Amino acid sequence: MNQHVSEYLSTGPSFREGEVIERIESFRSRRPRLRDEFINLAHGAGGKASAALVDAVFLEAFRNPHLESLGDGAVLTLPDGQQLVVSTDSFVVQPLRFPGGSIGHLAVHGTVNDLAMAGGAPCWLTASFVLEEGFPVAELKDIVADMAAAAEAAGVQIVTGDTKVVPKGAADGLFITTTGVGLVPPGRQLSARRVRPGDRVLISGTIGDHGMAVMLARGDLAIEADIRSDTASVADMVERLHGAAPSVRWLRDPTRGGVGTVCNELARATGLAVVLDEDRLPVRPDVGGACEMLGIDPLYVANEGKFIAVVAPEEADAALAAIRSHPAGIDAAEIGEIAEEPASTVVVRTPFGGTRIVDMLVGDPLPRIC
Amino acid sequence: MNQHVSEYLSTGPSFREGEVIERIESFRSRRPRLRDEFINLAHGAGGKASAALVDAVFLEAFRNPHLESLGDGAVLTLPDGQQLVVSTDSFVVQPLRFPGGSIGHLAVHGTVNDLAMAGGAPCWLTASFVLEEGFPVAELKDIVADMAAAAEAAGVQIVTGDTKVVPKGAADGLFITTTGVGLVPPGRQLSARRVRPGDRVLISGTIGDHGMAVMLARGDLAIEADIRSDTASVADMVERLHGAAPSVRWLRDPTRGGVGTVCNELARATGLAVVLDEDRLPVRPDVGGACEMLGIDPLYVANEGKFIAVVAPEEADAALAAIRSHPAGIDAAEIGEIAEEPASTVVVRTPFGGTRIVDMLVGDPLPRIC
Repeated sequence: MNQHVSEYLSTGPSFREGEVIERIESFRSRRPRLRDEFINLAHGAGGKASAALVDAVFLEAFRNPHLESLGDGAVLTLPDGQQLVVSTDSFVVQPLRFPGGSIGHLAVHGTVNDLAMAGGAPCWLTASFVLEEGFPVAELKDIVADMAAAAEAAGVQIVTGDTKVVPKGAADGLFITTTGVGLVPPGRQLSARRVRPGDRVLISGTIGDHGMAVMLARGDLAIEADIRSDTASVADMVERLHGAAPSVRWLRDPTRGGVGTVCNELARATGLAVVLDEDRLPVRPDVGGACEMLGIDPLYVANEGKFIAVVAPEEADAALAAIRSHPAGIDAAEIGEIAEEPASTVVVRTPFGGTRIVDMLVGDPLPRIC
Repeated sequence: MNQHVSEYLSTGPSFREGEVIERIESFRSRRPRLRDEFINLAHGAGGKASAALVDAVFLEAFRNPHLESLGDGAVLTLPDGQQLVVSTDSFVVQPLRFPGGSIGHLAVHGTVNDLAMAGGAPCWLTASFVLEEGFPVAELKDIVADMAAAAEAAGVQIVTGDTKVVPKGAADGLFITTTGVGLVPPGRQLSARRVRPGDRVLISGTIGDHGMAVMLARGDLAIEADIRSDTASVADMVERLHGAAPSVRWLRDPTRGGVGTVCNELARATGLAVVLDEDRLPVRPDVGGACEMLGIDPLYVANEGKFIAVVAPEEADAALAAIRSHPAGIDAAEIGEIAEEPASTVVVRTPFGGTRIVDMLVGDPLPRIC
């Protein structure tokens, strides 16, 4: 497993368990603050700078309880009691097509998965396109066909949309924004507030595949490897999980910022520790090798067809078996647990008996991966 | 009123009533077809090329009854019978700020108005941002503050969002995509299928203000005029209308492509004629003057705070009075009626006793106005 600390990453050096408590004082409850005067790529990377931007600009202006939960979707209660989940994402990936998928697949899977993470059964999507003048119609048709195929496979309908065109040079090919609407079954509640010390952390499969596939597809790295994006809907797998482990506490798909950043969001939201075991993290050898060569920790590399689940310890085995029963879940693993201390912190236990703190992603080693 | 036929516009020359029937044979039931290999600005202008793109690319791939209604929003029925309306729009206006508003106001008003046009009471919005590296954070904060103010005034909450950043040169400042969710009151039904010959066509105020304000704000025309965008939520006004005229047939906000294009969509959807009286179209003198100088028919110029309503003849007076009772509706007018013939066609009766056919917008005389 990669032990590099690249210039992009803020993982501290490894150190022994006893030192942890002192060390994490500086992390605890510290909210990132926005100091930049101009937007930079890190503000879109899903890590620390993104969180600072969201806090300083969007939360500040739009403040309401839905936004403050900072989930990937908002759960809305209709006057008759029915709960909806709504989620939106823009997709700006470059290149538009990469091994394993295209921006069209991502635009459907990304939003479908966000609905599933918020507890919703995905039903409907909207799709809005910003096209650059001169974009080939044939390429647009191919991307839209990918969206249609992905929507059909995920059991959702694309019900309305919009198209804008900007002059040549005012956008980079095309950007797609999808918004999803799902229905939350009665009684289903997923929230960081339900997470308890002793709960187990599961991942539905290998990590880092999407980010590395896109990175290598750009062709500007001297690395050859057969790495495919994992872009896929996880909604089916998540339904199996709910069936087997009705008390699932919390779900999140580790897209931008990767498993490391998502676990930090959980640690900060709960005030608890997320303790991961490095040697239980499923990483394909070629992905691990490419990360090693680039000095990037796979914990920070984006996934587009995986989810993290926190479940009660007594349901952990059943939950894992349910995920593994799905063809896309065969590499699922229990990768750690929730602990009281170190508070609000993610720590990784290394195979050598050491422990390192994993902070949120800092900077943007992999721009435009979704 | 402008009588120019600019190179952008396909309005035929004026001719006498008797000639109309023969003339419209070539328009009738003709669906625009996509022949372009590359996207051009007209595909985003909301007129004929946009319709061709939507037909050939999006309808073809995503085919389902929601999309085929081609409204600005999709009406969705939940398992318990509650009806939702969902609508999405991307905003790419340039400049970002213009007399009367900003892209932030537009991004809220545009989607709120689409919900109201589909019969929904607007409740929630999502907002997704594509930012160009180097965009000033202070400017973003101002735009987001405009969104917050617009949302508060319209009574909607912005409940979730997303931010992506692309490298310098890969976007033009920022693009915003909003998606809205509204609730449709029981029994409310708006549809082109409900429109009957004899119904009256109302407009809620002056036309062309937004498009001309943005055009002049670019400063590359040698025209000085104090023209402000009409960007505003019309949801309040629409509720007054529903109260006074419970059988409202059909509503649409004449944004891109203007009143002319929207009336063509109605004519094509119903197979009926939309007959407008040119001298009853409310146009501010400065807007009319600027249109005259540019050779652009105000019927094709975008509005962002107006709506067209088709109402039963017996409710027309009450409907007009209700709209005029709202401070933003004082210039509302009855501008025409629905007729059997010429089928699927929009005709304008000129003050001189002539008649001209108004086709959908062709080309894009005013790029990036929303």
